[in-house]
Amino acid sequence: MFTDEYFMKIALSEAHLALEKDEVPIGCVVISNNRVIARAHNLTETLNDVTAHAEMQAITSAAHFLGGKYLKNCTLYVTLEPCVMCSGALSWAQISKVVIGARDEQRGFINKQLSLHPKTEIVTGIMENECSSVVKEFFKSKR
Amino acid sequence: MFTDEYFMKIALSEAHLALEKDEVPIGCVVISNNRVIARAHNLTETLNDVTAHAEMQAITSAAHFLGGKYLKNCTLYVTLEPCVMCSGALSWAQISKVVIGARDEQRGFINKQLSLHPKTEIVTGIMENECSSVVKEFFKSKR
Repeated sequence: MFTDEYFMKIALSEAHLALEKDEVPIGCVVISNNRVIARAHNLTETLNDVTAHAEMQAITSAAHFLGGKYLKNCTLYVTLEPCVMCSGALSWAQISKVVIGARDEQRGFINKQLSLHPKTEIVTGIMENECSSVVKEFFKSKR
Repeated sequence: MFTDEYFMKIALSEAHLALEKDEVPIGCVVISNNRVIARAHNLTETLNDVTAHAEMQAITSAAHFLGGKYLKNCTLYVTLEPCVMCSGALSWAQISKVVIGARDEQRGFINKQLSLHPKTEIVTGIMENECSSVVKEFFKSKR
């Protein structure tokens, strides 16, 4: 039951919540022991704040839930590859695992030769098409 | 009157506020038209939140003050070179200028070959000794 697809679907539902607010549709969840401890979607426009990416909110929220700033036994599921800012935050958080839906070749951290914490496992390509197309459709509608 | 040293001293006073809370002593201010529109210091321990770096708080706060998410006519004065996370946030904010006190060879964005927004001017070495020694003394006291 608790497959990568199971949790990525929840992250994708967060992306759709962002879409309803005319935000770039990116969503994520943080999981601890198969339990969702944080969920968030991009709110940069709503909050007028470039730091309000889904991952940043979820890291803060998960740490608050756990009562500690490190997310050592947690997994982040995120629909789009984290940017430089979010990869830096994930490194500081020492998160155990990051599962990525679609790659972001231009803005994502992987092509910038950045790495997360040495102990962080990275998985890519979970529900890639669904995660990618929601973002592509959003930008197409803006042109 | 409004020299780089003038504003870096305010950033340094923020670093000392962090020190009083037993936080890694890093502080910053955001300036617009020679006016301080945001000031902040590191609060990662107090808030149990790895994202609570001085710069992240100041970016959010300055955007709130300006009523828009871009800091296009703003200068950030920060006592220590921003990390990967904070450099990513500064890039998204398209800030005009970043003035750095001390370099952070290990954790700073410069040695990671990261750049800020193409239009962002970067100045380093303002009150370098004062900015560096407050951090060094802090870590020495922890050993």
